[in-house]
Amino acid sequence: MTGETLAFTKGHGTENDFLLLFDEHGKLDLSPGLVRALCDRRAGIGADGVLRAVRSGDLPDGQGFDPDVWFMDYRNADGSLAEMCGNGARVFAAYLEREAGVDFGEGREIGTRAGGRQVTAIGGGRYSVGMGRWTLSGGGTADAEVTPRDYPSALPAVRVDVGNPHTVAAIPSLAELSALDLSRPPVVEPEPPNGTNVEFVVPLDPLGGPRGRIQMRVYERGVGETRSCGTGACAAAIASMAWEGDGAPHEWDVEVPGGELTVRLRGSEATLEGPAVLVGDGLVDLLALTLA
Amino acid sequence: MTGETLAFTKGHGTENDFLLLFDEHGKLDLSPGLVRALCDRRAGIGADGVLRAVRSGDLPDGQGFDPDVWFMDYRNADGSLAEMCGNGARVFAAYLEREAGVDFGEGREIGTRAGGRQVTAIGGGRYSVGMGRWTLSGGGTADAEVTPRDYPSALPAVRVDVGNPHTVAAIPSLAELSALDLSRPPVVEPEPPNGTNVEFVVPLDPLGGPRGRIQMRVYERGVGETRSCGTGACAAAIASMAWEGDGAPHEWDVEVPGGELTVRLRGSEATLEGPAVLVGDGLVDLLALTLA
Repeated sequence: MTGETLAFTKGHGTENDFLLLFDEHGKLDLSPGLVRALCDRRAGIGADGVLRAVRSGDLPDGQGFDPDVWFMDYRNADGSLAEMCGNGARVFAAYLEREAGVDFGEGREIGTRAGGRQVTAIGGGRYSVGMGRWTLSGGGTADAEVTPRDYPSALPAVRVDVGNPHTVAAIPSLAELSALDLSRPPVVEPEPPNGTNVEFVVPLDPLGGPRGRIQMRVYERGVGETRSCGTGACAAAIASMAWEGDGAPHEWDVEVPGGELTVRLRGSEATLEGPAVLVGDGLVDLLALTLA
Repeated sequence: MTGETLAFTKGHGTENDFLLLFDEHGKLDLSPGLVRALCDRRAGIGADGVLRAVRSGDLPDGQGFDPDVWFMDYRNADGSLAEMCGNGARVFAAYLEREAGVDFGEGREIGTRAGGRQVTAIGGGRYSVGMGRWTLSGGGTADAEVTPRDYPSALPAVRVDVGNPHTVAAIPSLAELSALDLSRPPVVEPEPPNGTNVEFVVPLDPLGGPRGRIQMRVYERGVGETRSCGTGACAAAIASMAWEGDGAPHEWDVEVPGGELTVRLRGSEATLEGPAVLVGDGLVDLLALTLA
């Protein structure tokens, strides 16, 4: 290894993957170009995003948190600032446990650009994350239509906000779900001005059970199909609960292409539970990256 | 890091990327499942394939090389054995130079499953690789048709063999090239029994120059569109030379999505020249991988 290097850890939560950078005192100049170069899957190391761990007190503006609170400085692979990510928050907690001995066993707040979020280690490499408040427009009555590429008809859909916008459509069978062409964005009518994430959902268990189970695929706004989306899993569970109506379960297991998540819906708050895995550690040669 | 770890280096040649494993004496049990888990871009480290560096004398069967010859044990991301890769051979040489002090300045043979290949370091992080013999069926007269997804008509194409099968079609403009939908395999008629790689080519320079220049995109058999394909670049140059006819250049610069390659065609032998980059080094936690 020649020249300047940067230490990284690669981790994932249901195959939503991240490069973790330890920067307790905020010394790292994490430019958008560096984030893009690190996340480039072929010319860099590769990930869906970067999670920089920094003490809130060492941020230029503190973001309003207690100085000791660990702040999750989350960047998308395109270099842009990101607010909050349920899958990322689990991986971030697993990383802080290992890297800095932080104890999430009793629950602990982490700072994000969307505010403080409670993260709890529940054993077995699993974590639960408070996802904040959600809203469902129209009480579950379809107020949109979604047409996936090459699909023969428009699907009725509902709008859910989980800090970011989602449009959720049920689809009749697992065969149809797996056959969907999500290589291009589904057409959403009416199209929200800032776009929307889109979820396609199949119920798996008979209605009326104590616990719901669904399978879903997700097309993330500006990204494409992904293996998992934490807010998307919450939105899919919220829509499914509304569709089932009175007596619907408040706890939903959500199968995504990258694994399985559990969503709990109490009042207007959602929590997301799932695994976090730290895959490996390394040093990237900053001079070998393609900065553009 | 807990449990057993494996050291890796990540490198790429025109964004065809590899995990390099140093295993001089052939001690590593590199199962197909381990290769798949390492190459998984979200649950592992991620790459197009693995290149294991082992002395030929420490292979179970020697593969017919002098025992001191470094053998490039190349595996595809799906765990299958692979024969030869021009982009990989450059990265392999850069890795051996750094890791084991091997000197490629005067040219040196490496062992591959397709036989010995001459690799030469030409400075500036660039390497040339002997790609072996090629054949062009029908002397460049179209003997196939290729229809990309959603494309309005079939394109005439030629068959080129560069150790593996290619079907090369010219396409009228860069705008059409960049608009091609290669999210699914192009339809090739007649379809060869073992499939084919498919290249789409636009000539960039006026005909009759001393040096040719083309831009291409490639759909690799069984893989999908890739950022670069060494044999594909050779096939595209060979087809372009045939199309240009008498007096065509024997040296072609080939722009691929991941960078630029140079192909030299002398007699029935092709050499491929291009960059090699070692991006970073690390340790993967074998217990954290998803083996399937």
